[in-house]
Parts: sequence; structure tokens; C-alpha cells
Amino acid sequence: MTKSIDIAVIPGDGIGPEVITEAVKVLKAVAAVEQLDLAFTEYELGAKHWLETQETLSEETLAKLREHEVILFGAVGADPSDTRIPSGIIERELLLKLRFSMDHFVNLRPAKSYDGVPTPLANPGKIDFVVVREGTEGPYAGNGGVLRAGTPHEIATEVSLNTRHGVERVVRDAFRRASLRERKHLTLVHKHNVLVNAGHLWRRTVEEVAPEFPEVTRDYMHVDAATIYMTTDPGRFDVIVTDNLFGDILTDLAGAVTGGIGLAASGNINMDRTAPSMFEPVHGSAPDIAGKGLADPTAAILSAALLLEHVGQHDAAARVEQAVEADIAARLGSEARSTSQIGDAIAARVA
Amino acid sequence: MTKSIDIAVIPGDGIGPEVITEAVKVLKAVAAVEQLDLAFTEYELGAKHWLETQETLSEETLAKLREHEVILFGAVGADPSDTRIPSGIIERELLLKLRFSMDHFVNLRPAKSYDGVPTPLANPGKIDFVVVREGTEGPYAGNGGVLRAGTPHEIATEVSLNTRHGVERVVRDAFRRASLRERKHLTLVHKHNVLVNAGHLWRRTVEEVAPEFPEVTRDYMHVDAATIYMTTDPGRFDVIVTDNLFGDILTDLAGAVTGGIGLAASGNINMDRTAPSMFEPVHGSAPDIAGKGLADPTAAILSAALLLEHVGQHDAAARVEQAVEADIAARLGSEARSTSQIGDAIAARVA
Ligand SMILES: CC(C)[C@H](C(=O)O)[C@@H](O)C(=O)O
Ligand SMILES: CC(C)[C@H](C(=O)O)[C@@H](O)C(=O)O
Repeated sequence: MTKSIDIAVIPGDGIGPEVITEAVKVLKAVAAVEQLDLAFTEYELGAKHWLETQETLSEETLAKLREHEVILFGAVGADPSDTRIPSGIIERELLLKLRFSMDHFVNLRPAKSYDGVPTPLANPGKIDFVVVREGTEGPYAGNGGVLRAGTPHEIATEVSLNTRHGVERVVRDAFRRASLRERKHLTLVHKHNVLVNAGHLWRRTVEEVAPEFPEVTRDYMHVDAATIYMTTDPGRFDVIVTDNLFGDILTDLAGAVTGGIGLAASGNINMDRTAPSMFEPVHGSAPDIAGKGLADPTAAILSAALLLEHVGQHDAAARVEQAVEADIAARLGSEARSTSQIGDAIAARVA
Repeated sequence: MTKSIDIAVIPGDGIGPEVITEAVKVLKAVAAVEQLDLAFTEYELGAKHWLETQETLSEETLAKLREHEVILFGAVGADPSDTRIPSGIIERELLLKLRFSMDHFVNLRPAKSYDGVPTPLANPGKIDFVVVREGTEGPYAGNGGVLRAGTPHEIATEVSLNTRHGVERVVRDAFRRASLRERKHLTLVHKHNVLVNAGHLWRRTVEEVAPEFPEVTRDYMHVDAATIYMTTDPGRFDVIVTDNLFGDILTDLAGAVTGGIGLAASGNINMDRTAPSMFEPVHGSAPDIAGKGLADPTAAILSAALLLEHVGQHDAAARVEQAVEADIAARLGSEARSTSQIGDAIAARVA
């Protein structure tokens, strides 16, 4: 039986369109083998679109996006030197707006070391963990303000909002993911010795959800200490659950220690399926290397595998992951390839 | 002329007293050579003291501490498994209370690689930067609260407070430190694309103070990206200025990449000298290795060097630093030494 998947595609800016082209190529290759019927609808959004229309994301476009089953997202953001675009507006009014309005409460970011991928660590060991980053609250809530702006008496605040509802659902998801893994271990990362209110809510919630998953062992780490372990002993982590900001920081670090942000995939997942989930490479739009065929599409392709996983196509997802692993293994000692050459090679392995 | 320095000493818990013993030993050695007259007054504070008295830091003790010129601080904090002590109370009501009430607005944390010190990085290169971490506001302000605690409708908030006054003084200090260094480069680390209010205050302040230091070049980095560069290219940093929480995270990471938190020194500095500044190793009380002579006192000894620097004893400070560097160079390939053996060796080199 052919299963059809209706995918909205947001290529975005910079290297976004380049890596998304390769991810779509690989999706089409796996669709042919696994008899999936994929529909792709492209949406032009991002810095370029903003320059043309002064629009980040209209309610109309948002409504259209909601009609799709899933979203494949490239990267957005202008060249930082382009002063025509108010700084951060694309990130907040497009990317974060999608995450928040579609209730992407699980920001899933696997970190895995591959043989043959150079890492900055001398002895990385085997790294295979996933970060379950909360995606809809915390310091990302957009609360806070400015009083007496531009005067010597200016006060600027940022308010981190943490709800039992928001914390419990992501903590339960992280426990569930841990229970399905071999090591079945969950690490809560926070800074409860300073951020007492939010920290205690997180800790209590972990304690209260734990009895539902008696097979999962757990520990706690302050975020500062977590950065130490991530460089000295990253192999110790299995599943990490943490808030939106700590998750942002730790997953970039995780990308770095596993050999670069060119491999780091992510899913912005609404586990209740009340809106489409969105899959995107962790990297940004990298305007400095855009249009040169230099971008590594692997993170986008692995994000497509997470997309397949999310829609229940486990065989197709595994096929893409295996193709990526084989491709990475073959990279060792070989010549540098262009973005499309990497995409072609992975698509060929999938077929 | 003999110069006298009146030092309050807070050894604290765990390995705190062990490493402080060595720092005092080295201070006495350098005092003999440089003809300094050091007075040490010990204060028993920390988890052990709390268990005996239920007191973290009384107003009376705080007033006494204020009378000294500087404070040498070890480490505080109970064994996390000791449930008699409310979690985080020692950190907040003693350590943070000292930093806040004495207006330690410059939390100075140098990061330096030494030949012969193993680091987790494969190619660390030469690392020599200092983090100027804001110490009296940000998410550490203790603002925020809990509504409907323990119910499914619980909301917990953390409020980051950022004032022009607070940001400007630490930014100016960072520029000044950068202007005195060889590379004269300042990197602002924040997350202004998400934390707009605080982020823009920091950015604007940097731009507005910059003309006072035309010789200093500068750049900006998001905190997530900064963790990547710190593992892939830490040599690029010269002076980093950042907020209280980002500084906490980045300096643990900096400690890790330069070869461990056993070497990381810090100063909590009130540049206006309206209250004593406080010098402490970045590491914690490490209850697991306490009392075994396993702790490395180097971070405490380097903190004592920062103390000497602060009170204007540049020669004495340089002497301690050189002794530490020579000791570290001699470590390569030699047998493991106890806490006091390391202290003895450095004290001998100072003399
Ligand atoms: C672009 C930015 C808003 C975003 C974030 O902070 O979440 C990015 O860093 C990420 O990790 O996806
Ligand atoms: C113990 C803790 C409150 C403290 C901090 O977060 O500042 C510590 O991590 C540090 O870096 O000095």
C-alpha cells in the first residue's frame, strides 16, 4: 500500500535552499524504494522574502502551513552585515513563531559520533546521545521589556516562563525516549542552585514522572558542569532533558564535539500532533559560504530521516540513516565533494 | 617599605580548606621575598557551619568581612546527597550573597593553556583569554517566583535584570583590560536574537563605550556559537565580556578545554573598591575527593595571584604566576603529587 506524505518545504536563505535540495533528492530516492507517495509544497520565506515583501510570516501562510503533515525547513537569516533587516526579526518572527504557534514542545537533537568524522576532541570515544530540548517556553517566551531605553537608567528584563504543563510533557517524552534506548538513562540539566523557581519545577517534575518509567535511571547536572562533561566524557550521556536556552547552548556544543554542525539534525516536534512538526538542520544559513556548493547537506538529510521517523516510516528512516552512515564512512581520506555530490552519493546509496 | 594586606580567609567545605592551606602557604612565601606584611583572619562559613548553626552568613559576619581589604575564598557546598541542607542555600545565601552585597561586578576568569597540561582537545593551540563575567545582575538577581506551586497549573518564572549602570561598568572594565593586552580584542557574547531586551542593551552599551578605546577591535558572538568556537578554535579569543549566566557556562567550558577546572582561578572584583574583592578557584567543594589530598591547589594559588594583582602587588603576583608555570611545566611525566606536595613545590619556587 502506498502511503502519502504531504510535506511543506521552507528552503529559506543562504545555504538553506542548497541543503534542502539534497534532502528532497534523498527523500525522493527513498520514496521510490519504500513506495511512498511524497507531495512537496514550497514556501518562500526568510530574509530574501522579507526584503521583497516586508513580511516574515503572515497568518495566511501560517494557516496554509498547518494543512500539511510535516515541514522540512532549511535555514533562515540574512547576512549579519545586511543592515536593511532588523536584527533577529527573521529568527523570532519566522523560526520561533513556527515553533511556538505549532506547539513544537519537543526540540529533538541527536548527537552521534561517526567513524571517520574528525572531531576537536583528542579522545571522543563513542558518542551517542539525544538532547530533548523544551521548545515552547523558558527564556524564549518573548517576555520581558525595557524601561527608560537609551538612558543611564535603562532596565532591560528577560522573563523565563516555565509551566508544569510545559515541563511535564517534555520530561515525559524524554523518559519515554530513554526507555526505548539501550542504556535507558536520563540526565536533567538545569541550574537549580541559582534559578531556584524554574529549577525546582524541573526537578520535582522529573521525580514525579519517574515512577512511570521504573526502568530508566537518572541523574542531574548543572548546565556549567554539563559543558565540562560534554568535552571530557561525552560518551556518558544517553538522553538529556533541558530547557529551551540550555538546550540551545548544549546542542551547539554537542554538534561541535561530534564533528561539526554539518551533521547535526533536529526535529521540532508536536507530540500531540495538533499541528505539523518541523525538521531542520541545527546549522544556520551561513551566508558566507552560500551559493558555492560548499555546504554539507548531511544535517538536512538526517533531519529528513527524523521526519520519516515521525510519520511512522521507520524502514525509510533507517534506510536514509544507513546511507548517511555508509557515506560518512567512505569520506575518510577521499576528496572534498560539493553539496550536490554528497546528496547524489547518499541518494544513490538509498536506492 | 613594608606594605600590609589584611586578608579575610573563607576556607569553606570539602576541598576548600585543603586548597586554601596551600594558597596561604604560597602567599606567605611570596610575602617573605617581597616584604609584604600579610594578616590572615579566618572565617568559618559554609555547609559545615550551617549544620552547626543554621546560619549561612549573618549581617554581623558580613560587616566584619567588609573591614578587610580582600577575601580569599575556598569553596562551599555540601555533599549533594546530604539532604539535611536545603539545596542551593549555601550557594545563594553565602557565595552569591557575598558577590552581590559587596558589588563584585567584575567576575574575572582567565583561561590559559600551559605546556604539559593535558586537555581534551586534539589541537588546542595556544589559549590565552580572559572572561569578564558580569557578577551582580542578570538571571542571578534572584527575581522571579512560583504561582500555584505543586499543582498542574504551576508557573515558575526567572527574571533576568539588566541595567545600563550594571552593563556599562563591566563593559568598560572589559574594554580597559582588552586595551592592556597584546591583541586588544573584545568579544561580546550574548543571545540578542532571542533575548532582545537584554541583548540590545549589551550591544548598544558596547557600541557606546567603544569610542573610549579606539585601539580595541571587537566582535559579537551568540552564546551557542561561542561554545563551538571554544572547542574548535579557542585561540581566537582575547577578552570576552558577557552576562552572569553565560559567563558561568562559558568559564566552566573554558576550564575544561584548557585542561581542567583544577587550574581555573577567578576574582570577584569590586572595581570601585567600596567593598573588599574576593578571590576564589572556579571549582567547587568536590566532597567526593575531600580529605584525601587529591585536590589540585593550583586554581586557589592562581586566585591568590589575582588577589596580589588587585592590591597592586604586581611583582608578587608575577612571581606566583611564574612559580606556577614552572611547576606545571615540571609536571609532565612526573608522578602524581598530593595537594600539599604541589603547594610545597610552588612555595619553594616562589622563595
Ligand atoms: C536561530 C535561533 C533563534 C535558534 C535558537 O536559538 O533556537 C538556533 O540557534 C537553534 O538552535 O535552532
Ligand atoms: C556555585 C554557583 C552558584 C556558582 C555560580 O553559578 O556562579 C559557580 O558555578 C561559579 O561559577 O562560581
